[in-house]
Amino acid sequence: MKIAVVAPSCTLKRDAADRLEALAASRGDCELAIHPQCFLSDGHFAGSDEHRLAALREVMADPTVDAVWSARGGYGSNRIAEAAVRDLPPAARDKIYLGYSDSGFLHAAFHKAGLKCAWGPMPQDVAREGGEAAVTRAIDWLVRRDAAAIEPALQAPAMAFNLTVLAALLGTVLEPDLRGVELLIEDVSEHHYRIDRTMFHVTSSANVRSVARLRLGRVGDIPANDPDFGRDESAIVEEWCHRAGIPYGGRADIGHDTENKVVPFGSN
Amino acid sequence: MKIAVVAPSCTLKRDAADRLEALAASRGDCELAIHPQCFLSDGHFAGSDEHRLAALREVMADPTVDAVWSARGGYGSNRIAEAAVRDLPPAARDKIYLGYSDSGFLHAAFHKAGLKCAWGPMPQDVAREGGEAAVTRAIDWLVRRDAAAIEPALQAPAMAFNLTVLAALLGTVLEPDLRGVELLIEDVSEHHYRIDRTMFHVTSSANVRSVARLRLGRVGDIPANDPDFGRDESAIVEEWCHRAGIPYGGRADIGHDTENKVVPFGSN
Repeated sequence: MKIAVVAPSCTLKRDAADRLEALAASRGDCELAIHPQCFLSDGHFAGSDEHRLAALREVMADPTVDAVWSARGGYGSNRIAEAAVRDLPPAARDKIYLGYSDSGFLHAAFHKAGLKCAWGPMPQDVAREGGEAAVTRAIDWLVRRDAAAIEPALQAPAMAFNLTVLAALLGTVLEPDLRGVELLIEDVSEHHYRIDRTMFHVTSSANVRSVARLRLGRVGDIPANDPDFGRDESAIVEEWCHRAGIPYGGRADIGHDTENKVVPFGSN
Repeated sequence: MKIAVVAPSCTLKRDAADRLEALAASRGDCELAIHPQCFLSDGHFAGSDEHRLAALREVMADPTVDAVWSARGGYGSNRIAEAAVRDLPPAARDKIYLGYSDSGFLHAAFHKAGLKCAWGPMPQDVAREGGEAAVTRAIDWLVRRDAAAIEPALQAPAMAFNLTVLAALLGTVLEPDLRGVELLIEDVSEHHYRIDRTMFHVTSSANVRSVARLRLGRVGDIPANDPDFGRDESAIVEEWCHRAGIPYGGRADIGHDTENKVVPFGSN
């Protein structure tokens, strides 16, 4: 199993790359190829749009690569997602694509283009406290489709998105078809009032209203609301689901943390 | 000219209300009626959805009221905007509605319902340093349609929205019809990467792509981007306009500050 790591959003830290390479080497069941593009820096991004796109397209076209792993989130994959799936080389269809958070822009494009993708931990997660468990879970799933890595209550077909990324996908050419899908959402570093506003937006969508059910992962690192918002993220999401007639399925085991599980897109 | 002040979003500060009342009294050309609802507090909001909606509907239905002025922004008018324009009483059509920022949710609903509304300074702005100039400008426009209060380069029909509010309106029943409109946007307290992401989202909309031109007001209080984003808000907005084929008309004289000008919606 050859796993290529590229960074369609932000720069991978060298220290995280070193730790991941050591971990992969000690396993002996996978070959990790961290693309030099991961360490580029151009303002906010891991290199210019052209550099990030070129690295992504390179590993997508490489028939020796079995899995393409997004190095980290941050922001920026939306800028190249549409171009990433244009005139797909045949080898792009033989592999699995893994990532979460900002990678949702790519996943929307990949899934629409018929490629296999999944939500799950990323290389930069190794730098979190206890992060080896997260990347080990991701590799276990990539290498041997370890069922223990998968979100435990998942009812396929499923999709998982960062809530803010999902909101930004609506109305774009990348917008996923959510009909009958188990939709998992999570978020990070958003005030309660922002979550409320984004839920207003997202649950107004006829497409979102067509999901089989919606479940809420963890919302981490919520900045203090001034004054206190008065309700937590769970109550907010449940209220908007109720207002929109969307079946709310309760909490989900995903989030910007080391417990983050894998959610294969579609019926995989 | 009787001006009713209500708070469809967040609570008005008592000190700002006192200063505004003193200012209005000293002018002698308007009667200011600050609704007690402005001082309610329910978590994030100036009272529950029911209280905020009831106060708004009350002044909308009052034939003695000439203008309805949103006390301040913050967040929350989206929660009552659809209900605010349901079964409109005749008196609601004889008045002008003024506000900005979060009030954009209401303005979208009002304009769609055929009510006259405008972007402009709000009562809470009096608390800014030099804020008397801002609220004076707003009252000058309400009382005698002072042309000096209006954004100087405006080409009617126009609309103005906070960028983040506009993004949250897309795909909802409140989404404004932007065909042929001069669209002014501004924002506050958003990182450069968020502005870039929101511009990606907004400029993907066929509706937004149908504007006559888009102009950028001020983007205030931008949190530090880590690392530096590499481009400023003007370059970001211009790039996405270019990618989407939207005529970019340069900067506009609106923003979350005391220089904020009035933008009458539509052909007013």
